[in-house]
Amino acid sequence: MFERVGVIGVGFMGGSFALACKESAFCKVFGVDINPEAIRKGKELGVIDEGSTRIEDLKEFDTQLVVIATPVRTFYSIGKALREILDESCVVSDIGSVKGHLVYALEDFLGPRFVGAHPIAGTEKAGVENVLKGLYRGKKCIITPTERTDREAKKKVVQLWESFGSLVEEMDPYLHDHVFGAVSHLPHAVAFALMETIEALSQNSVDLFKYPGAGFKDFTRIAASDPVMWRDIFLENSNNLDIAIEAFINAFSRLRRLIKEKREDELTQYLRSASYKRKSLD
Amino acid sequence: MFERVGVIGVGFMGGSFALACKESAFCKVFGVDINPEAIRKGKELGVIDEGSTRIEDLKEFDTQLVVIATPVRTFYSIGKALREILDESCVVSDIGSVKGHLVYALEDFLGPRFVGAHPIAGTEKAGVENVLKGLYRGKKCIITPTERTDREAKKKVVQLWESFGSLVEEMDPYLHDHVFGAVSHLPHAVAFALMETIEALSQNSVDLFKYPGAGFKDFTRIAASDPVMWRDIFLENSNNLDIAIEAFINAFSRLRRLIKEKREDELTQYLRSASYKRKSLD
Repeated sequence: MFERVGVIGVGFMGGSFALACKESAFCKVFGVDINPEAIRKGKELGVIDEGSTRIEDLKEFDTQLVVIATPVRTFYSIGKALREILDESCVVSDIGSVKGHLVYALEDFLGPRFVGAHPIAGTEKAGVENVLKGLYRGKKCIITPTERTDREAKKKVVQLWESFGSLVEEMDPYLHDHVFGAVSHLPHAVAFALMETIEALSQNSVDLFKYPGAGFKDFTRIAASDPVMWRDIFLENSNNLDIAIEAFINAFSRLRRLIKEKREDELTQYLRSASYKRKSLD
Repeated sequence: MFERVGVIGVGFMGGSFALACKESAFCKVFGVDINPEAIRKGKELGVIDEGSTRIEDLKEFDTQLVVIATPVRTFYSIGKALREILDESCVVSDIGSVKGHLVYALEDFLGPRFVGAHPIAGTEKAGVENVLKGLYRGKKCIITPTERTDREAKKKVVQLWESFGSLVEEMDPYLHDHVFGAVSHLPHAVAFALMETIEALSQNSVDLFKYPGAGFKDFTRIAASDPVMWRDIFLENSNNLDIAIEAFINAFSRLRRLIKEKREDELTQYLRSASYKRKSLD
């Protein structure tokens, strides 16, 4: 598959990916990060073999695969830089949470050797010190090839994820953003807004954060996620997210009305249907 | 404290309470439930000692404490029935998630021997078969006495919860509903609405429930909660919940605007503040 891999962005996501490359696919990994501390810690923890704060240094490492693991709004400048640096034969992929137009932008810079990927795994933790061994085992990884994508490059990227124990699934880049705008980006936006709500309601009364029941903590855990990573996801998938937000506000307003107007039977039906659906996911 | 306790409603909450009474306070417990299966299972699992589907049968058990553990909208009729059945000396309490006017209604029926309580513990599971041993250990229990509450009755109820390992805290009944309307009832309403949203968005496209990332499952876990229990909570605390919903819609609309208008700095600030607050809860 790949013997030498470059990972751009040595945080929780990039670090866990680098570790999987080393442990499951026996690759040598070169890490790039603008933060020298991330490189130092990454080497110390054995997450990367070598590293640098300069993307140009990838050139000397002779990589067969470079994976972009930075916040998605940096993909444009990184794609442009990689075009200048990499050999034609080097495959490029990413682990970003937004695909759609970003995949086509990277394809414009890098050509058919770019293969978009999005592993459906993660936590609210950030930083290379929190990397998780085996993060991708048993988890879905969505691959988003286009009609231009090089078959051989795609095959190798799929094999790499399969070597991690991931369940690979192909999806159209734009469909991906519609799906994850709803099931991932919307819940994160809701969780962030919920924290702001409790803060606002605390201004005129007791400190509500003193009473976080178990449900509240679980429910808002994802609001602890990295703000810059999520800012970029929200901005790059803003259209799909806005459609999902609109649908949520409709569903929530209906629930609010049923409660306010004490429409008991319809309310029971609403909650029963939601509860039934959630149970069926386990 | 209490040697003989009656528990009305032998579900997850009432059952876990009954078990705590038996194991931590060495009480004999009589369970009442309209569902004969709950009584049968409760006895079989050793959660209750005796039981009946008829509330009148409590009379013969000679209880010193009766605790109401049914959905909160049933509290009115149960309070009225208990007034006819119980000895004057029997203390009455509850473990409902709504206090405020409900506490005063029960006080009207039962007098100063009623002591409102709300343990901040639970799961999304329902049914006596899911009872949890030690559910209340290390958890807060909010006690909501009024100016009329009998001191001796309150003291005994507090001692009972302390024997379970709970951290007892007193709160005004109306303040309780304001606090938990925000930190508990609002997040549950949001979670139910989120399930409806994903269902609605699935109608015109792929089945979005096929792609539940880890975040989505954690985030919506509370939407699997018992629909009747939550219908009653929402209806009985509708005013506070509506205020919390209004605050949430304001906070969420601001986030939506920042994303739509790509106001990068304010968006970063919004997410950073929410993330920081959530992290500080752990």
